[in-house]
Amino acid sequence: MTYTFAPIGVIRSCFPDKFGIPRQPRLVTAARARLELLPGFNREEAFAEIVGFSHIWIVFVFHDCLGEGWKPRVRPPRLGGRKTVGVFASRAPYRPNPIGISAVELIGIERSARGLALHLRGVDLLDGTPVLDIKPYVPYADAIPEARGGFAPSAPDHRWPIAFAPQAERQIAAADPSGARELRLLITQVLAQDPRPGYMDRYPERRRFVMRLYDLEITWQVQTDGILVTEIAQPNHSNSQCGAELGPIGGGDRDGDNLGDASVGRERPKCNG
Amino acid sequence: MTYTFAPIGVIRSCFPDKFGIPRQPRLVTAARARLELLPGFNREEAFAEIVGFSHIWIVFVFHDCLGEGWKPRVRPPRLGGRKTVGVFASRAPYRPNPIGISAVELIGIERSARGLALHLRGVDLLDGTPVLDIKPYVPYADAIPEARGGFAPSAPDHRWPIAFAPQAERQIAAADPSGARELRLLITQVLAQDPRPGYMDRYPERRRFVMRLYDLEITWQVQTDGILVTEIAQPNHSNSQCGAELGPIGGGDRDGDNLGDASVGRERPKCNG
Repeated sequence: MTYTFAPIGVIRSCFPDKFGIPRQPRLVTAARARLELLPGFNREEAFAEIVGFSHIWIVFVFHDCLGEGWKPRVRPPRLGGRKTVGVFASRAPYRPNPIGISAVELIGIERSARGLALHLRGVDLLDGTPVLDIKPYVPYADAIPEARGGFAPSAPDHRWPIAFAPQAERQIAAADPSGARELRLLITQVLAQDPRPGYMDRYPERRRFVMRLYDLEITWQVQTDGILVTEIAQPNHSNSQCGAELGPIGGGDRDGDNLGDASVGRERPKCNG
Repeated sequence: MTYTFAPIGVIRSCFPDKFGIPRQPRLVTAARARLELLPGFNREEAFAEIVGFSHIWIVFVFHDCLGEGWKPRVRPPRLGGRKTVGVFASRAPYRPNPIGISAVELIGIERSARGLALHLRGVDLLDGTPVLDIKPYVPYADAIPEARGGFAPSAPDHRWPIAFAPQAERQIAAADPSGARELRLLITQVLAQDPRPGYMDRYPERRRFVMRLYDLEITWQVQTDGILVTEIAQPNHSNSQCGAELGPIGGGDRDGDNLGDASVGRERPKCNG
């Protein structure tokens, strides 16, 4: 017996790549997304009263992991990528049925000529993620603050100090003149969590990375006392420092240690969501 | 684009019928279930470290609702079955993709000749429910106690007083001699929520009901000051008072007002889960 589902919507988020996606929802409050409803589900009445809920569940497909199979054991980043746990004791994306659930903040509903869309905040969802269902977050049923959280008992408490080079500050102002994208806050929150895969401590010489947020390439360096953002570029207008040669994930692929392997262990993917 | 999923396990619960299933998980703490893993997922290593989590998410299919289609508006029992809300503002089972999520208590893992099974408590899952995924409940990511809960801001606070007729007390003792099924507590908790559909106030003359828990038929009466449990019978040994003529849901079907219509509005199904 199998069950076949068709998406009801698609996520348009600030995360075009896996690299940089928060490991759980709401860790990066500035991470925004639009959930665009597909034809047939683009009906306002199907969302009546939803704005009474501050948060909603997004039930989605880890579409970027499809066809890659699953492994019974994964390496959660919370355990430094060194210890394995069972896939069902993790939120890793490479699951027998690659379905994710994510509780995010509902900001509002947009009705436009393009159709109906939900505005979300605090997402950990890859741009293009197919959405199978939307449910209200019902605190009396869903919130169990006293639950015992195994190897992830609380949010990661380490936050890297983030600094911006003067050039990067100017480029942020130019790329986000109205501040609508909360770009400085978004970059700070994403980098403060250290998006590097756990295996990066095997590459101590690698200190320069590029990640994409929206249509921008963010170049940053790991320093002894924190992370320095050096450049914000739009690829269409990029200079040689933002070329594809760095790649969003950096040296991993070149060393045969690809992101896929590293992201298997994530409680929440780098892989889509 | 569609996505096809195969179950990894099946729920064996105390709820053989929709009638009586709690409207959310953990409202009935005595509701127990076994989650039996299917071949291929029956691997202990895939569950390593899961017992460190007190609660887990069950991602399941509302299998009893398949093929019945969805409606953009539903009638949540929390609104007395009189007001409609959008299906995506509800946890009703008749959804475009009939996927449910339920956070339940993980009691332990059973390894036996029959295979691997998880022992669960506080379930709202119909016996036979196909399970698509199991995830740890991560409190820092999943618990949002400050969330605003729309039309269901808190757990239903009304609890009916439940009394047992002397005959029913004797029958419980005989049916659950070791107390392992917590039968008296289970019956009390299920009935205290009043499992009758919202539309039953249209049938004030109807006061006698039969519901099934495990392999037992529980007969009860609505009285002015509460609910009286009159009989606990095993159908194989039943007398004429527990015949099929009452049916688990009672007069609804005969009046063209079937359970399906009533359960559409449930935040969590009578329909499977």
